[in-house]
Amino acid sequence: MTYTLILVRHGQSEWNEKNLFTGWVDVGLTELGRQEAKRAGELLKESGLAPNILYTSRLTRAIETANIALGVSGRLWIDVKRSWRLNERHYGALQGKDKAATLAEFGEEQFMTWRRSFDVPPPEIDDSSEYSQVNDERYSDIPKSELPKTESLKLVIDRLLPYWQAEIIPDLKAGKTVMVAAHGNSLRALVKHLDGISDEAISKLNIPTGIPLVYELDDSFKPVKPAYYLDPEAAAAGAAAVAAQGKK
Amino acid sequence: MTYTLILVRHGQSEWNEKNLFTGWVDVGLTELGRQEAKRAGELLKESGLAPNILYTSRLTRAIETANIALGVSGRLWIDVKRSWRLNERHYGALQGKDKAATLAEFGEEQFMTWRRSFDVPPPEIDDSSEYSQVNDERYSDIPKSELPKTESLKLVIDRLLPYWQAEIIPDLKAGKTVMVAAHGNSLRALVKHLDGISDEAISKLNIPTGIPLVYELDDSFKPVKPAYYLDPEAAAAGAAAVAAQGKK
Repeated sequence: MTYTLILVRHGQSEWNEKNLFTGWVDVGLTELGRQEAKRAGELLKESGLAPNILYTSRLTRAIETANIALGVSGRLWIDVKRSWRLNERHYGALQGKDKAATLAEFGEEQFMTWRRSFDVPPPEIDDSSEYSQVNDERYSDIPKSELPKTESLKLVIDRLLPYWQAEIIPDLKAGKTVMVAAHGNSLRALVKHLDGISDEAISKLNIPTGIPLVYELDDSFKPVKPAYYLDPEAAAAGAAAVAAQGKK
Repeated sequence: MTYTLILVRHGQSEWNEKNLFTGWVDVGLTELGRQEAKRAGELLKESGLAPNILYTSRLTRAIETANIALGVSGRLWIDVKRSWRLNERHYGALQGKDKAATLAEFGEEQFMTWRRSFDVPPPEIDDSSEYSQVNDERYSDIPKSELPKTESLKLVIDRLLPYWQAEIIPDLKAGKTVMVAAHGNSLRALVKHLDGISDEAISKLNIPTGIPLVYELDDSFKPVKPAYYLDPEAAAAGAAAVAAQGKK
């Protein structure tokens, strides 16, 4: 008996296109992003994989991606659970800033530390910032003390794994094929855990957008074989594109 | 303290357009249906009503309607619950049949009995019919004995009210603004209960598509005042169009 988990990173968002740090800012997909989501749905359909339950973050771009993909694959009717614990990494004071300008202002070392270090978060966002979520109704059920104002990848793992254990694993145990539609960093956090990637090596891992990544898990919810992308060639090209971000 | 409930009937489906009895057959929206859903979202947004949780049937046309409307109103991130108990009335052996041809074949009296009588269901659908849901995976969690093969409005009420009591009322009690995206007959069933409409009078009630209907409910979950449509003029025109269905 193995358990099937499908991870999908959302397609291009309006702020990906503009090359801005997004984090918890709730921007929509671009037309390209919607096309990527459609392609994810076609890949799902061709694969014969049939998710029984969908998990998403509380961010529109992940939800839209999932809705489009499930619509194309004819499974819009499955159950849905959403959680802030699947949200993108909170980018702190960088939210809303241009990536290239940030690189130019702070230099490559600081820039790459913020983007890729395991445990160094960017500076906290100020509550008065227009890009702060401190008063966002969708997080009103989170105690203010838990609501992040910035996050490293380590902090993403800290808030994601309890949810993985408490919610997602029980659904896998019940025999459900679980689809998770989320973000570059919340998915990196999950992949790091599943594949036992070291704190150092995770900085090199880039997850491409819109290409379902499939895990078959054993009874201890570890992979029985390497996870695979439903379109490996496109995935390799996509990962390279993500790695080059901010350098335009 | 009052509780807010918003009902939305899905927009035009592919089979509404073709004038076929649909019931539990899972057809998508037409372009007009998507436009109606968009309009529902605009009306919601203008109204300032802010649903905290979405309930849908297991049918794509209701789910698509809700997703489009919530996307337009900026609330795609709310929690979602789906249930077959919110599905359209099961139309039995009529599913897949042309409404005008059925009217011509069986005559107005029989036709109107099937469409509008309170407790006379159409003949049961055969399990071997391509329009039967007996082997549809999405209902695999329902005991076969509970899975309808035809339904009257009375039978819809019988399967819907336990869900209203057990799931929706507790969310209202918790102070959530609840949105229900469903179907002509599952919404008529709910409206009949809420407004205390008699078995006879309910036959005259037609709910227009894509126009949010808002209830303010008291502590016993009865309306404190008449429910209202967010666009009353369009609602009146829409209800008249529904009443004329099958007569083209």
